[in-house]
Amino acid sequence: MTTDFGWGDGYVGAMKGVILTIAPRATIVDISHDTAPQNVKEAAFVLHTVHRHFPEGTIHLVVVDPGVGSARRAIALRTERACFVAPDNGVLSYVIAEERVEQAVSLTRACYWRPKISRTFHGRDIFAPVAAHLAQGVPLEDLGQPVEQRELLTFPTPRPSVRPDNTIVGHIIHVDRFGNLVTDVQEDEDDRIGLPLDDGIVIEVGGQQIEGVRSTYTEGEAGKPLALIGSSGHLEIAVPGGSAALTLRVTAGDEVLLRRGNHEPG
Amino acid sequence: MTTDFGWGDGYVGAMKGVILTIAPRATIVDISHDTAPQNVKEAAFVLHTVHRHFPEGTIHLVVVDPGVGSARRAIALRTERACFVAPDNGVLSYVIAEERVEQAVSLTRACYWRPKISRTFHGRDIFAPVAAHLAQGVPLEDLGQPVEQRELLTFPTPRPSVRPDNTIVGHIIHVDRFGNLVTDVQEDEDDRIGLPLDDGIVIEVGGQQIEGVRSTYTEGEAGKPLALIGSSGHLEIAVPGGSAALTLRVTAGDEVLLRRGNHEPG
Amino acid sequence: MTTDFGWGDGYVGAMKGVILTIAPRATIVDISHDTAPQNVKEAAFVLHTVHRHFPEGTIHLVVVDPGVGSARRAIALRTERACFVAPDNGVLSYVIAEERVEQAVSLTRACYWRPKISRTFHGRDIFAPVAAHLAQGVPLEDLGQPVEQRELLTFPTPRPSVRPDNTIVGHIIHVDRFGNLVTDVQEDEDDRIGLPLDDGIVIEVGGQQIEGVRSTYTEGEAGKPLALIGSSGHLEIAVPGGSAALTLRVTAGDEVLLRRGNHEPG
Repeated sequence: MTTDFGWGDGYVGAMKGVILTIAPRATIVDISHDTAPQNVKEAAFVLHTVHRHFPEGTIHLVVVDPGVGSARRAIALRTERACFVAPDNGVLSYVIAEERVEQAVSLTRACYWRPKISRTFHGRDIFAPVAAHLAQGVPLEDLGQPVEQRELLTFPTPRPSVRPDNTIVGHIIHVDRFGNLVTDVQEDEDDRIGLPLDDGIVIEVGGQQIEGVRSTYTEGEAGKPLALIGSSGHLEIAVPGGSAALTLRVTAGDEVLLRRGNHEPG
Repeated sequence: MTTDFGWGDGYVGAMKGVILTIAPRATIVDISHDTAPQNVKEAAFVLHTVHRHFPEGTIHLVVVDPGVGSARRAIALRTERACFVAPDNGVLSYVIAEERVEQAVSLTRACYWRPKISRTFHGRDIFAPVAAHLAQGVPLEDLGQPVEQRELLTFPTPRPSVRPDNTIVGHIIHVDRFGNLVTDVQEDEDDRIGLPLDDGIVIEVGGQQIEGVRSTYTEGEAGKPLALIGSSGHLEIAVPGGSAALTLRVTAGDEVLLRRGNHEPG
Repeated sequence: MTTDFGWGDGYVGAMKGVILTIAPRATIVDISHDTAPQNVKEAAFVLHTVHRHFPEGTIHLVVVDPGVGSARRAIALRTERACFVAPDNGVLSYVIAEERVEQAVSLTRACYWRPKISRTFHGRDIFAPVAAHLAQGVPLEDLGQPVEQRELLTFPTPRPSVRPDNTIVGHIIHVDRFGNLVTDVQEDEDDRIGLPLDDGIVIEVGGQQIEGVRSTYTEGEAGKPLALIGSSGHLEIAVPGGSAALTLRVTAGDEVLLRRGNHEPG
């Protein structure tokens, strides 16, 4: 389960009650309920960093749903590895960009929902029961009308751009609990951007310059920003023993510039 | 489990350890641990919105217990659908008001507790082991002395009042993570209060007037308060894309006035 | 699981995905994920108050790891009651001080890790898979090189000192969600410190004096600090209906002085 419901209101609990009523033996795992309220992009990113670590056949129930009750579609889809049940609002953008969607349906078969549907909590009334029925073995195609992959709503997953002077313009896409700044610059993009992520890079963020990309948080000085490749393969800015977000006064959406350093050998 | 223990101190973990020692195959589900510390009424409300969604036979372990160690009773009770283990401090008020209590006992049989009882953490030492023994099949009546339903401590579940001019005076009873204001005006109260919750209503809250009751969050304007019936059947004030609590500067306990609008047709 | 990863980033979810891929039938329980980021001592204390309540044979996965990626060792050890998998950074100090370590190993056998190891998230890449393999029955000694107990990194578990005038100088070691101040003065220390923790004690903290040690929170006056023995056997300062931390403006690390009261009889 990945939602923006937090732990204070019982929304997550209600969904689990519904799931266990239909699928008493389901193993339910919380991925995150504390992304910023209604922030579809942040939840999409968190899901992206996590879903591949789950067993094959996992059913991902993803409910960050500012458009609940509107005409936005509710969907379920299957990739080679897993199923996903979510509103069709872009929260599966990374999944759809990275994996082959084998089958997708619009959730239209009300017999797999709760009998009475509220206008404000489809997580409990539609998404949770549908995920539970999937867990019980209901075939995906029984849940509703087929949808083509290209009909699904996605946002472009963030990518750095390149200026004429070869400066790379990346963006902070997530600030984690430690204040680490996760960017859209990925380790395997060296080739695309023509700039090895190593000692020869100068990174500019929040008005400060950081030289080189380190291997671990402990290579830096306490209190000083450093850059490294984080656990999801993205370039990250961290402050050992502190918070990069607070030290640099930056937040999600802000730019991170990368350029070849002046003193680079060779 | 519904508690006010949060996730930072290990209190919830300790209770789970105790439960699993006695009932190794129990499925433990967190409903909420993040209600305001020692706020019995808020926890009672969250439990009210959630417990009916759990499977029949569920054991609800509810520990918000500002009077721990005092003479307040510890109780277990059974309704048609579920069992509840809690301090006798009103945290089950909604449950007792809404369901038929088939049996209730005061927890007096120490053989179902931990051997050593602290004065400050009965959640771990009394409530958790009792719930675990119930899960293992110990009959409710074995846990202690019978108690009549009318002896149980309850607070009146909040209800709107009606002024002589037919204005309805409701109250905010919960502010959720999204800043939505949940009130004590319920959708099935139309008859009682003689005022259909529809377009003809004007709602006054935090010094602002809201016209009509909408169906979904998305019918409103971004940043402007709107009213709708929320997922628990209560009238709710929300601000699409924002927080009603912050926009209107109101909080739990504040009044919400409802009256027939001047321009209502018919 | 005891970590400092919070619920907003998916780090805990990633670890659970890895565990369930290796050990699909594991029962995973969250002890705490909300201790202060990178605060090894706080997490060590929380673990200390909780681990003995879990069933025999529990595997405790403890990841608060500011030195991730450095030369700090990763370890697994077995006591009479449980196994522990953690960085060798002191987070198991209480466990090692209190229990007999039957066997300890340095995690060096990469066949029990994920195939690709990040430099920043050994929780996911080393500790979680090792714990899962233990749960699946892999013997502890297969996980790596034996380590002697005396080679393990520990910090001295906090203890009060005694001044020449017999004043006892304790310390606040944890502030819980309710603002209660948990100190390093333990109930069974009467003998050692020669001062019974009863009515004859005067406690000085945050510039205020508290007379006597009570039995329960409800014995005090609302808003006034009181002292009592908390659920983990430590002397605690609480404010009934309020927060001792806010009322007294103190925090973890601050001193708490205990002396015999002037008016003590006998």
